[in-house]
Amino acid sequence: VRARELGVVVGGLPTGPLNAITDVEGVLVGHTTLDDGADLHTGVTAIVPEQLFATWRLPAAVEVGNGYGKLVGSTQIDELGVLESPIVLTGTLSVYRAADALLSYVMRLRPDGLSFNCVAGETNDGFLSDIRRRPITERHVLDALEGAASGLPGEGCVGAGTGTTALGFKAGIGTSSRRLVIEGVPVTAGALVQANFGGVLTVQGVPMPAAELVPGAGGAEPPGNSCMIVIATDAPLDARRLGRLARRAIFAMGRVGASYSNGSGDYAIAFSTAPASSPLLPDETLSPLFTAVMDAVEEALLNSLFKATTTTGQGHTGHAVPYDRLLRERP
Amino acid sequence: VRARELGVVVGGLPTGPLNAITDVEGVLVGHTTLDDGADLHTGVTAIVPEQLFATWRLPAAVEVGNGYGKLVGSTQIDELGVLESPIVLTGTLSVYRAADALLSYVMRLRPDGLSFNCVAGETNDGFLSDIRRRPITERHVLDALEGAASGLPGEGCVGAGTGTTALGFKAGIGTSSRRLVIEGVPVTAGALVQANFGGVLTVQGVPMPAAELVPGAGGAEPPGNSCMIVIATDAPLDARRLGRLARRAIFAMGRVGASYSNGSGDYAIAFSTAPASSPLLPDETLSPLFTAVMDAVEEALLNSLFKATTTTGQGHTGHAVPYDRLLRERP
Amino acid sequence: VRARELGVVVGGLPTGPLNAITDVEGVLVGHTTLDDGADLHTGVTAIVPEQLFATWRLPAAVEVGNGYGKLVGSTQIDELGVLESPIVLTGTLSVYRAADALLSYVMRLRPDGLSFNCVAGETNDGFLSDIRRRPITERHVLDALEGAASGLPGEGCVGAGTGTTALGFKAGIGTSSRRLVIEGVPVTAGALVQANFGGVLTVQGVPMPAAELVPGAGGAEPPGNSCMIVIATDAPLDARRLGRLARRAIFAMGRVGASYSNGSGDYAIAFSTAPASSPLLPDETLSPLFTAVMDAVEEALLNSLFKATTTTGQGHTGHAVPYDRLLRERP
Amino acid sequence: VRARELGVVVGGLPTGPLNAITDVEGVLVGHTTLDDGADLHTGVTAIVPEQLFATWRLPAAVEVGNGYGKLVGSTQIDELGVLESPIVLTGTLSVYRAADALLSYVMRLRPDGLSFNCVAGETNDGFLSDIRRRPITERHVLDALEGAASGLPGEGCVGAGTGTTALGFKAGIGTSSRRLVIEGVPVTAGALVQANFGGVLTVQGVPMPAAELVPGAGGAEPPGNSCMIVIATDAPLDARRLGRLARRAIFAMGRVGASYSNGSGDYAIAFSTAPASSPLLPDETLSPLFTAVMDAVEEALLNSLFKATTTTGQGHTGHAVPYDRLLRERP
Repeated sequence: VRARELGVVVGGLPTGPLNAITDVEGVLVGHTTLDDGADLHTGVTAIVPEQLFATWRLPAAVEVGNGYGKLVGSTQIDELGVLESPIVLTGTLSVYRAADALLSYVMRLRPDGLSFNCVAGETNDGFLSDIRRRPITERHVLDALEGAASGLPGEGCVGAGTGTTALGFKAGIGTSSRRLVIEGVPVTAGALVQANFGGVLTVQGVPMPAAELVPGAGGAEPPGNSCMIVIATDAPLDARRLGRLARRAIFAMGRVGASYSNGSGDYAIAFSTAPASSPLLPDETLSPLFTAVMDAVEEALLNSLFKATTTTGQGHTGHAVPYDRLLRERP
Repeated sequence: VRARELGVVVGGLPTGPLNAITDVEGVLVGHTTLDDGADLHTGVTAIVPEQLFATWRLPAAVEVGNGYGKLVGSTQIDELGVLESPIVLTGTLSVYRAADALLSYVMRLRPDGLSFNCVAGETNDGFLSDIRRRPITERHVLDALEGAASGLPGEGCVGAGTGTTALGFKAGIGTSSRRLVIEGVPVTAGALVQANFGGVLTVQGVPMPAAELVPGAGGAEPPGNSCMIVIATDAPLDARRLGRLARRAIFAMGRVGASYSNGSGDYAIAFSTAPASSPLLPDETLSPLFTAVMDAVEEALLNSLFKATTTTGQGHTGHAVPYDRLLRERP
Repeated sequence: VRARELGVVVGGLPTGPLNAITDVEGVLVGHTTLDDGADLHTGVTAIVPEQLFATWRLPAAVEVGNGYGKLVGSTQIDELGVLESPIVLTGTLSVYRAADALLSYVMRLRPDGLSFNCVAGETNDGFLSDIRRRPITERHVLDALEGAASGLPGEGCVGAGTGTTALGFKAGIGTSSRRLVIEGVPVTAGALVQANFGGVLTVQGVPMPAAELVPGAGGAEPPGNSCMIVIATDAPLDARRLGRLARRAIFAMGRVGASYSNGSGDYAIAFSTAPASSPLLPDETLSPLFTAVMDAVEEALLNSLFKATTTTGQGHTGHAVPYDRLLRERP
Repeated sequence: VRARELGVVVGGLPTGPLNAITDVEGVLVGHTTLDDGADLHTGVTAIVPEQLFATWRLPAAVEVGNGYGKLVGSTQIDELGVLESPIVLTGTLSVYRAADALLSYVMRLRPDGLSFNCVAGETNDGFLSDIRRRPITERHVLDALEGAASGLPGEGCVGAGTGTTALGFKAGIGTSSRRLVIEGVPVTAGALVQANFGGVLTVQGVPMPAAELVPGAGGAEPPGNSCMIVIATDAPLDARRLGRLARRAIFAMGRVGASYSNGSGDYAIAFSTAPASSPLLPDETLSPLFTAVMDAVEEALLNSLFKATTTTGQGHTGHAVPYDRLLRERP
């Protein structure tokens, strides 16, 4: 279930109609899921802003919360402040192949170009999946990109979240959105997360320790636990302002109990789909948007957990959050 | 009262004997408080690591959570990774005078030097105090430095916290510490905060909105709401590792409900008092220390609020947290 | 003399009419010079963009080439991308007093404000001047600010350059400008430097070692040798793009022989005076502007040297560049 | 020829015996060169520090001079300050495949690992080579890695330099080294460059414009002109200090006439091979090492040009520097 179906409503701002990153017009999401029921639980998630196809540059920024990760494409975003490709997420050891496949995709669409900065992120799904097999092929990545669609994206054990765990439970992909009006301009902000990090699950302030909720679970935390967060917005923002949003996305991880541990590669990428001609929102109007982003990330993280199902692989089991107990025990 | 007197215990790690930054051996704290009962509620807080006097360089790092602030001294710390002076905190418009007074202090101790990097931080206490008066004199700063002592520092409405408010309530200075053993090495980490930021007070997950708890309060949030956090540790860490600690200090603000708003100057400075010859702790051993820092900051922030008393100035009132109600209403 | 009077012409772009930072319309420069003929050789230089007085925020960026310096005001520029005050330069140990005096100036003009980010830079003139005396008063700073004017600013041993030395010779303040047309938009870029760094003077590729040109000179290099560079432009640029300009300003120091040594605090601040409504120049059009900035900085540095005169203080002598020999020996 | 064979000696410090990055003990270099005599002029260069095989972590830092590039692996180096893989250089559109092949290499040597940060850099050789073909295979990369050797590495049109041009001429790979003694510790620093950037060739201060030296050449500058610089040293330095070295490597590009243009991806990676137990060199002793690095980079860049031979591909010709004329015309 999604968090809201459990009565968990984060913050006071309304969501978009889908309560998903795809509420930002033009933002498409596609998943390729690899799950053989045994030791392969991985996949690819693609975030494709259609506005990219017009100019191949959308304002964007990367925030590194903890750089124990292999994000491909960050330095050029830092320098030029633009996203030049869709964003692809996958498992750690497949990230370079995913970036290369993304390059194939972009090159096909831009037959004259000689230089493209591809953005591929990863978290480590090696706890449940045979990561050293590097199972992701170009075809898997192209399928996610070409199959990207509007509508509510799959959540939980799909795409790049097929094999991830977070806060002691099985997690995966989650998404959420918020709507607000800033200086008379209606604004949507959406988050999509690949949740794979440590800590103690905390739902609206109430700790839900895996060790208590799932006796026998917990135990060893997976290696390279991490979180990739993608923020999309139609608010007219430049790279500097988007960087401020991305930083808040990292801050929001703490709300669900993230431990921000040494081995966690915690990254947020924020981009804007607004036309380049739109006047930028002044910084002093952004606090409500910061709140919107933090709320959307918190809820996306909860969705990534509540939508996931118990998964076994590589001799480990990631247990779904027993949210029926959560329902009963909340005041 | 301190948070623990209310039964609020953050995390599972033990505190030092004082539950204060001064549990880190050699770290002294001094306050100068200016409060005329009318429109002057400001002061100076000095953090003085005695180990500094030996070599005048302690490993240190600054993390900027949100750079809407006037911290003096950051670029040289970034470059060289060392603290060359005690740290002084005060109100925004007095920060340059405080830095200059700190320079006087350091020059007196180092009669041959020609270059000193002084570190002075600030938050804006102009909501309750007549900040444009720039009331801080060299004498006030020297008093805080020279009066710095071991033992439990004053908390709440003292020193640089005399006029600050946070999360809709009167706040001020707070401190806390944690102890743990890493690779067989006993480690203490302490936090001291000057709390002055927006959001909704959240105590161990339970929101305590000022608007509800203090009818008629809340209202306008002060300008330039901010948070200065100082982290001291005797763990042998270099500047890069200390930067990782400082980042976690910023992350911990969210635990008590920080909104991380546009106008908040949120900074953390971390330094190590360990002898330069100590082998550094490896990064992969630091996660428990990250937890210790986040727990200490969370509790220091709560102490800064629970120890503060209702203060009126400049036509505004900062109300103390009605913690008796908090006590009654917690499960 | 200025470099051009010696036949030294840097690059192929034309200068503005004054060949000075004041060619950028609205940019004023003022100096206060303290020279008692004995051990006091210091001062203040103020760069005042008149456009600031309209909105109190001009797009700006700081680049730290080597952070062994005490620049006041950098973190807020990093966060918000704007300059909120004129820029003041002085000697190292007076920088906090200069920042405080600048605050007085800004507060007077903005009687309702409660938060101001003042920008004050410094280099260490303690080789020739009694820096520990901290001789700069508020009056000195206000004089430089209030006396700031259009027209060709003083160069060499004036203002913040009164006591500085560079590349083994007496140096000081220098300025230069360039004009070009980008995408049909006429653009002026100007540089002003406070030169105080080590290395071997190199004029258009030809080394001019102080040890050879001034027998008996050279010897001990001053402590805290550094360089402050201010770049002004009327090109419509945001903070990110201005940061790219500022980085090139640092790169240009190498052209005159900078050694970029450990103790050199090398900073560049770039700001734009263009109206906020102007469409920004695209990054891919900026390379000629990068060249303009590097050429202007190189020539400003040469001017700072060629305009300086031999100065003695604190038992040291900074010798003027013997440019007549330079003239004879160039091909 | 190498620069020294032309009488070009950069700076006053001695070189190592090979005047190459391989003078740093344990540092091996391997090239795979793809040149079909038609439109394929590309390859792979691998820098393999043998010390890596002991602990799989060497202190390292990345400096981004201008981030118009696709360097893989930077954020984890920033966070943890260590290099976990050899460094591979290639052409832009093959960089992800190169990173993936490098991962294969590392995984084979570390059969139990689940997370590896691979470092692959690139410049754009699409001016002379059919870059869209993405011709680099895993075998090419493994060959460069497995064939890496001590001794003088190939320079000019080899490996990742097969198709690159710089400063209007054919360039490629170049290397150089310097030796010095710091605090009684003998230190070697070596540089290896993949030169592919714009500007006007300047040899020890004397401009050698391609447009004049090679009539009919010059013309269109290649897209994505860039420079990758690798610095190796046996000096005991941590990541912060290595970052300071890397920054100087970028500064040294200006000495040979780099224009630091918008489209140039200019990166330096510095690593130390010193045993982890060695006491670090203090910052205040590093200025001579900064000079050594800048001198080695300058000479490596000149070697990359003087060793290159005229190459034609994709309808363009990169002309070798006519160094016989250079010899005649120098004073």
